[in-house]
Amino acid sequence: MTQVLTKWVYPFGSGHADGSAEMLDLLGGKGANLAEMSKLGLPVPPGFTITTEVCSVFYENDHNYPIELHGQVAQALADVETLVDATFGDQKNPLLVSVRSGAQASMPGMMDTVLNLGLNDETVEGLARKSDDERFAYDSYRRFIQMYGDVVLGVAHHHFEDILENYKDERDYRLDTEMVAEDWREITCRYRKEIICEHGKAFPQDPKIQLWGAIGAVFGSWMNQRAVTYRRLHDIPESWGTAVNVQAMVFGNMGDDCATGVAFTRNPSNGLKQIYGEYLVNAQGEDVVAGIRTPQPLTLAGKQSGGVDSLAMEEVMPAVFDKLKGVCDSLEFHYCDMQDIEFTVQKGQLWMLQTRNGKRTAQAALQIAVDMAREKVIDEREAVTRVDPVSLEQLLHPTLDPAAPRTVLARGLAASPGAATGVVVFDADEAERRAHGGDDVLLVRIETSPEDIHGMHAACGILTARGGMTSHAAVVARGMGRPCVSGASDVRIDYGAGTLAAGGRTVFAGDVITIDGSTGEIMVGRVPMVEPELGEEFTILMTWADKYRILKVRANAETPEDARIAREFGAEGIGLCRTEHMFFEGARITAMREMIMAEGEVDRRAAMAKVLPMQRQDFVELFKIMAGMPVTIRLLDPPLHEFLPKMESEYAELAEATGSDPNKIRHRAAQLHEVNPMLGHRGCRLGITHPEIYEMQARAIFEAAILVGRELGKTVKPEVMIPLVATRTEFDLLRGRIDKIAEDVKEDLNAELSYLVGTMIELPRACLCADSLAESAEFFSFGTNDLTQTTFGISRDDSAHFLPIYEEQDIISKDPFVSIDVNGVGELIRIAAERGRSTRLDIKLGICGEHGGDPSSIAFCQRIGLEYVSCSSYRVPIARLAAAQAAIGKLAESD
Amino acid sequence: MTQVLTKWVYPFGSGHADGSAEMLDLLGGKGANLAEMSKLGLPVPPGFTITTEVCSVFYENDHNYPIELHGQVAQALADVETLVDATFGDQKNPLLVSVRSGAQASMPGMMDTVLNLGLNDETVEGLARKSDDERFAYDSYRRFIQMYGDVVLGVAHHHFEDILENYKDERDYRLDTEMVAEDWREITCRYRKEIICEHGKAFPQDPKIQLWGAIGAVFGSWMNQRAVTYRRLHDIPESWGTAVNVQAMVFGNMGDDCATGVAFTRNPSNGLKQIYGEYLVNAQGEDVVAGIRTPQPLTLAGKQSGGVDSLAMEEVMPAVFDKLKGVCDSLEFHYCDMQDIEFTVQKGQLWMLQTRNGKRTAQAALQIAVDMAREKVIDEREAVTRVDPVSLEQLLHPTLDPAAPRTVLARGLAASPGAATGVVVFDADEAERRAHGGDDVLLVRIETSPEDIHGMHAACGILTARGGMTSHAAVVARGMGRPCVSGASDVRIDYGAGTLAAGGRTVFAGDVITIDGSTGEIMVGRVPMVEPELGEEFTILMTWADKYRILKVRANAETPEDARIAREFGAEGIGLCRTEHMFFEGARITAMREMIMAEGEVDRRAAMAKVLPMQRQDFVELFKIMAGMPVTIRLLDPPLHEFLPKMESEYAELAEATGSDPNKIRHRAAQLHEVNPMLGHRGCRLGITHPEIYEMQARAIFEAAILVGRELGKTVKPEVMIPLVATRTEFDLLRGRIDKIAEDVKEDLNAELSYLVGTMIELPRACLCADSLAESAEFFSFGTNDLTQTTFGISRDDSAHFLPIYEEQDIISKDPFVSIDVNGVGELIRIAAERGRSTRLDIKLGICGEHGGDPSSIAFCQRIGLEYVSCSSYRVPIARLAAAQAAIGKLAESD
Repeated sequence: MTQVLTKWVYPFGSGHADGSAEMLDLLGGKGANLAEMSKLGLPVPPGFTITTEVCSVFYENDHNYPIELHGQVAQALADVETLVDATFGDQKNPLLVSVRSGAQASMPGMMDTVLNLGLNDETVEGLARKSDDERFAYDSYRRFIQMYGDVVLGVAHHHFEDILENYKDERDYRLDTEMVAEDWREITCRYRKEIICEHGKAFPQDPKIQLWGAIGAVFGSWMNQRAVTYRRLHDIPESWGTAVNVQAMVFGNMGDDCATGVAFTRNPSNGLKQIYGEYLVNAQGEDVVAGIRTPQPLTLAGKQSGGVDSLAMEEVMPAVFDKLKGVCDSLEFHYCDMQDIEFTVQKGQLWMLQTRNGKRTAQAALQIAVDMAREKVIDEREAVTRVDPVSLEQLLHPTLDPAAPRTVLARGLAASPGAATGVVVFDADEAERRAHGGDDVLLVRIETSPEDIHGMHAACGILTARGGMTSHAAVVARGMGRPCVSGASDVRIDYGAGTLAAGGRTVFAGDVITIDGSTGEIMVGRVPMVEPELGEEFTILMTWADKYRILKVRANAETPEDARIAREFGAEGIGLCRTEHMFFEGARITAMREMIMAEGEVDRRAAMAKVLPMQRQDFVELFKIMAGMPVTIRLLDPPLHEFLPKMESEYAELAEATGSDPNKIRHRAAQLHEVNPMLGHRGCRLGITHPEIYEMQARAIFEAAILVGRELGKTVKPEVMIPLVATRTEFDLLRGRIDKIAEDVKEDLNAELSYLVGTMIELPRACLCADSLAESAEFFSFGTNDLTQTTFGISRDDSAHFLPIYEEQDIISKDPFVSIDVNGVGELIRIAAERGRSTRLDIKLGICGEHGGDPSSIAFCQRIGLEYVSCSSYRVPIARLAAAQAAIGKLAESD
Repeated sequence: MTQVLTKWVYPFGSGHADGSAEMLDLLGGKGANLAEMSKLGLPVPPGFTITTEVCSVFYENDHNYPIELHGQVAQALADVETLVDATFGDQKNPLLVSVRSGAQASMPGMMDTVLNLGLNDETVEGLARKSDDERFAYDSYRRFIQMYGDVVLGVAHHHFEDILENYKDERDYRLDTEMVAEDWREITCRYRKEIICEHGKAFPQDPKIQLWGAIGAVFGSWMNQRAVTYRRLHDIPESWGTAVNVQAMVFGNMGDDCATGVAFTRNPSNGLKQIYGEYLVNAQGEDVVAGIRTPQPLTLAGKQSGGVDSLAMEEVMPAVFDKLKGVCDSLEFHYCDMQDIEFTVQKGQLWMLQTRNGKRTAQAALQIAVDMAREKVIDEREAVTRVDPVSLEQLLHPTLDPAAPRTVLARGLAASPGAATGVVVFDADEAERRAHGGDDVLLVRIETSPEDIHGMHAACGILTARGGMTSHAAVVARGMGRPCVSGASDVRIDYGAGTLAAGGRTVFAGDVITIDGSTGEIMVGRVPMVEPELGEEFTILMTWADKYRILKVRANAETPEDARIAREFGAEGIGLCRTEHMFFEGARITAMREMIMAEGEVDRRAAMAKVLPMQRQDFVELFKIMAGMPVTIRLLDPPLHEFLPKMESEYAELAEATGSDPNKIRHRAAQLHEVNPMLGHRGCRLGITHPEIYEMQARAIFEAAILVGRELGKTVKPEVMIPLVATRTEFDLLRGRIDKIAEDVKEDLNAELSYLVGTMIELPRACLCADSLAESAEFFSFGTNDLTQTTFGISRDDSAHFLPIYEEQDIISKDPFVSIDVNGVGELIRIAAERGRSTRLDIKLGICGEHGGDPSSIAFCQRIGLEYVSCSSYRVPIARLAAAQAAIGKLAESD
């Protein structure tokens, strides 16, 4: 009987390989691509990959390997010996190998590598003879001892560095190049002594022991702190494990016909179709990475664009460069994507050490995707999946010049992307004043409230000391496309003194600072910026995306400016017009406050009547801009106390303005105070107890719709949305009042009127009763911000106290206010969609929370079959692209 | 072909009837029972019932009747004429009828009645001749005109009363008895003139027109304001409609051999088995009701116990009384319940006008149920359903003497039943001080917080100006069995001045007031009380209830006193021990504040170590009292800021006590401030970020369990409950820490330890992920207070701004914080129970929110198969009885 043994080891090299690029999960990225390149007939030093399954066994069995592993490694090693015609541990013709990690996902620099393995006091002499270069041999040996000592034996780097520095001092050497063979030999002796001293045991001379030591260290490095942290940050599951690649060494440091380098098959910064990269003559790969010597450009073009004097590889080694160019072409053709390549030239012979899909900027990603589709390397559909939707944000906002120096004052949350420089202003009114005066203003507040909207609008950036990623400041800033850093808790703001202090430094009102809403950095003074550019490729790719997209994309917008930007970015309507902003500006807030202070319904109606023409004009403008596209208008949502002044000093001011008594205002404010305003007297509850508000709004909407409809010559069909509905009765009652107003307006203006009435679904109860609601509501729009707050029982304003700790400790994988919590909030949305459709098959379903612009949330929306997502204007392109990828099935939901 | 016509009219009388008692929904209560009594052969004046279906047709068809109705009424009327040998409208021998409403549920006084119908200027002469009593005839006629004018023609009462008063003034009469036949005749003339004047048309002389007018008026009265309000308050569906009963008149006012009265077959106050009631000689039913003449007792026993001089019916009309007694016996025997009867004696002949199950006090209900079961009239199972669980509250708390006079200062919410009198104190500490000094104290606060607990405990009653039925004050007061009036918004409390003002009157600290937590009244001074008595019947009925009950009943209790009361009231364990109260008393709050102010974990642990022995002792006491019964302990739930002082003045005090800086305390308080504390850093979130708290609590619980287990000689198996869990990971992380402490304690005390770890389910997300949670949690306890807040998105502390309006406008049928909202919150509980059982079949499921003591919520818990309900100690008997009724299937859930 033949026993089928598990295959733990996959050899590659010399035109053959047991593995392939498809075996990514088993062989890791590096191993799979080494195998693939071997099979393509490219020059790959032979070697073998120990699978990620071994890693799992290793951790499941208390750091023990599968029993068959030793035999399989020995066999693979023997095969490598045959292929390169050298023998592991042989004194005359020693085989040297590298031992490298390689996980399914790239984790650059996180895990350990050992080079030159196989050297010892005897084989080093063989290497010297074989290479005819004693200095090279002992340099290689000392590098190996140091790496092995550090990675496998736990003797820290600095021990070795100190020895080298001392030695150079003794000899009065200044550069490593002054070291001759004898010097390096002496260094290897001293290194080995240090290892006995620090490690307690001698440096192992047996290459087999060296090999297993290195394999163990690489597997062990899967669980080191850096790797664990990196995985958490990049959502890489621990269960994947790493593979280990053992490969015959090739040397780029054996003379001037040797070199080592990295190449991108296209330019990773701008995406242009030209090989781009760097190399070093007579060097090992680590020299390029370490930055000890300045690398030289690969191409003449690169030399020109970089403005450097050093010689390009194209000039120095034209034949090898031609070969490299051929390899680049065939790799790109084979992988159908831009490749990031590592190579070594050993005595004029090119060797490929790695290939992988290259990282690139958003702009490059766009360019490459569009170019490759034009070149027919990929099709349009594939091109659409090649750009990370979130990366588009880099293109939509100005960014700091990465080369510019900066002094970081403090850090907060990267709440709204883009960078901004301006004078510090602590007050919304002053922000508006100074902005009108022509200043670039940075509005700095402890936290913002709806009363600050005009100041936020006038500012070019917003900084707050409190509040999370979904605080008022963050949400509004993203909606307006203003860069914002929120929750900078190390910053102390003193309104009275007009100062902002952090890190021992004080900034005064009027001083200039810069914020980077993409990193959360707050910087002193002005930092130079790079303006965004939306090229032709952007337009082309978005057109392709729109072809494949199923979900419609609307914008959350309430001002004409927002609406215009939304249309420019391709929004197909407004999914959420938050009307509270229409109560804050100028004379409106006074009328609103009159309403709040009024004694009876008559006075309340009189106050609202003052607001009617202004809101009607707001809607007229919005409807005109949207030119017949759907516009969903949410009736007033926030509680009344948000419209009253907060400060004692403002009471008197308001009292004078409204001819009232400050005591009365104070009393009313106290009366309206709420313990948990998020769960308070707001949304439709306000609509029910104060009928005059929604009635005024409905009238403004309907009159505007008729007026604009006449002007445009086509029907404007507004979608009136009732917020915070918990019960069918609430909805029916308000829908009845709205329908009544519609009848009145039709009669008053003698016109037809077409509209929908629906509800924002933002409470768990509404999801559960969706079947009943849908009998009466013509659409649902999921307000996922509040739905997340209630489903999770988390106030987003207060979540900064514990959510960061939750993320750090992996209690939640992602902030649920950023990506839809599929198992909780998502489950309620699924239930609501299912129940809603059960009573109204064609009910319009959309989402208008912050999640509408988050790709993984969009993937979820696609799966459960919503009709549209709505997001802030600046995220519309992101949503369009994400929706296309979701439709194609190439976008993952979060857990 | 024969067409089957709908039967709209059901005749009764003379030993026959088309209807019966079972046809309650078609004939209404009065009609069904008149039919039933007829069939029993009891003397019922003949008549007929127009069905409730006619009422529905009436309202669905714009106040039009079914076409067959006129014919059927005419036929039934003809039959009545035959039976009583009189003719409707006949000048010599006129038939007179009454027209009365009668719905499925009793709605006393809410709808309209017309008596003596059939009289006109001619038939009144016939009646005079036939009765040989002209005064009686004209008196009847003027009564009829007045009633008809009021009810049918809309001429208000006072018009007629004014005419009569003026007439008496003209004649210098003082009493109606001075009026002779001629006077009444004159009055009828004036009445008819007034009707022409006010109504615009003459009073109808045609009895048929009179009849249809009255029928229409009775149907119309179903929708009058009083009736609509009554139905809303008593949950009577509008769709039921009313029936109309037309019945031959009998007269109790035709001389001294005539009488009218009401009788209960048993005493409705105390339930004793003796006929109880009142009658009037020579009077009509309305005279008894109107209270113009003082009614006389029916029995000699009633005469003695009432201490009255007037003659009993038993003395005056012994033969008729005997007959009445026989009727009572046979009705009670027939209906198997105490009956409330209306009768008239006309010239020595007894006539039955109505019978229905009699209303009774809680004490009477208990007595009657137990007696009837003993008499074998009903069985034990039926007896258990005969007492309204909520009515038991009357027996468990002292109540105000209903006869005592009172001056009501203001009204609030009836937040916790019972009455209390005491001196007004505005501060918890002082309340404790004065209570220790022997005063009865009423704690008066704007609102209460956990810091006031000791004062609430010391007080005999609590009054707050803010907060709803489930505010802190209300919940804690019910838990402690303290009477409480909450949310008395008309009361203005000034702590500084030490005053409470309402209705223009000011009460000072130290003044005596009385509150009634069953009505919400706040009264000046002392109002005499009646102490509660729990008789033998209570014990017997509860024993029977326990036989049929399936749900277990536990108590929400944390103090030894609460626990003892709970056991006395039959609790089978503690379902919710809220440990926050264990952090507030004496030295503990100081240690807790030290923990909050501590710089690092070491100091935090040192502070918690001080609390450990105290909490351990708390648990020792609880476990001893519960003697092996299950005790569920909720780990600390409220946010830390609740433990810091609120007032600026207290910062200095605390700073001194803890050797800290007031600024630091102020800063920390500001840091801990939350916008929506209900959704903030509390529950397991606190447990995760501050491990030392739960670890200390787990240790205190486990050590106490082992100590008490040794002392009792039986295992104490605590149930450790983690609050506010939203995700499986939260639970697993904390469960791991708790298990670790358990291991430590076992080792430290060298003992075995048995315990469960489960979670409070109070967030929608937890319900949806219950399958995953149940893999790790051994029990779920539904925290329906918070689950209602999050599912509905309503902060209970703020709900007073709109929930009362919601109830008033019928937007919700019941306060969801009182009765489980079956379609929303209940749906989530159902999902959670189903999913939880899917992964842990035998998971322990219970409910520990306020709803645990609400009968309709208990019916819901029974239906979805929970294991237990837990409620405040004082509601345990209510829950036991409700659980029995739910098991028997005789308890309704709310919509």
